[in-house]
Amino acid sequence: MKLLEQEILNKGRVLKGDVLKVDGFLNHQLDVGLLSTLGKECAEHFKSQGITKVLTVEASGIAFSCFIAYYLGVSVLFAKKNKTSNLTDTVYSTQVMSYTHGRVYDIFVSKDYLHSDDKVLIADDFLANGEAVNGLRRLIEQAGASLAGVAIAVEKGFQKGGDKLRAEGIDLLSLAVIDEMSEEDGIRFRSNQ
Amino acid sequence: MKLLEQEILNKGRVLKGDVLKVDGFLNHQLDVGLLSTLGKECAEHFKSQGITKVLTVEASGIAFSCFIAYYLGVSVLFAKKNKTSNLTDTVYSTQVMSYTHGRVYDIFVSKDYLHSDDKVLIADDFLANGEAVNGLRRLIEQAGASLAGVAIAVEKGFQKGGDKLRAEGIDLLSLAVIDEMSEEDGIRFRSNQ
Repeated sequence: MKLLEQEILNKGRVLKGDVLKVDGFLNHQLDVGLLSTLGKECAEHFKSQGITKVLTVEASGIAFSCFIAYYLGVSVLFAKKNKTSNLTDTVYSTQVMSYTHGRVYDIFVSKDYLHSDDKVLIADDFLANGEAVNGLRRLIEQAGASLAGVAIAVEKGFQKGGDKLRAEGIDLLSLAVIDEMSEEDGIRFRSNQ
Repeated sequence: MKLLEQEILNKGRVLKGDVLKVDGFLNHQLDVGLLSTLGKECAEHFKSQGITKVLTVEASGIAFSCFIAYYLGVSVLFAKKNKTSNLTDTVYSTQVMSYTHGRVYDIFVSKDYLHSDDKVLIADDFLANGEAVNGLRRLIEQAGASLAGVAIAVEKGFQKGGDKLRAEGIDLLSLAVIDEMSEEDGIRFRSNQ
């Protein structure tokens, strides 16, 4: 049993509507000791890829990304969210559908901080349908930068975002992949990743 | 010259309307090596206070808070922002005025993660009028918890939030206090803090 899986079993709760409540340690209250250990594990996996930057989206991806970047010795860039479209020509931007919140929003990063010579690791706390990751990939494409891989804390393996990335040959490291979960029967993790 | 002051002089830019642009290392792109050093300095200052939790507000306070909390060996709790008032009885909430964005928003934390026996360090990247810090103080009061102090990266000393907190006797550590700034004349830091 891996560390994050154990934490999810100990402290997570499955709610209706495919919601996994992990806000006690991952995305509201933050167990920074755990996040540091997870960040180190991700950095170890990606350390030979020549990564220059970790890219995430506010707000809950920031903490996880900071510890990955710390151990890689690079900076984090977090995309900002905007419900309006009042964007300028100084940013790369794209639209992302949030199934959780049932709306489309813009994400954007300053052109000052993403360049064609960047090798970018995308990181986020959750991966479900892959909307956020694919939005971040579009920002990387707009900058002419290259994608080194994707680091995720919790992947909802019963949704299709992760498997689509793997089918594309992207180096996806998910520290815990949930293949089934329900209020009644609990959580089943994917083995042999 | 302190480390953060030097970074601000090297990489910050003063824009019209009392805006200090430090998004290259503090609140969009994140220099996590710098943030780790700053976090360690804050932890050193507050280490004997029996702090149980670092409280901040999304999104730009999260990274700074994570490194303070890491060196204190405690968790971070970040208040979420909401433009609507669709809050439940499971949260502590209050309203905060943002002068930057010209609007009022709700901030809230789950009652599950803030308790009467908590000794809380508030942390944020910026302090200007003190609206966010005072909002976070109201959440602490609602929980019956106690305030151990306030850690700030950049204080705009020409606004009054910081001096009001000091006048109340609150242990405020600001790593850089700007007393004057303008596009023409640059930045003057407060000495002898």
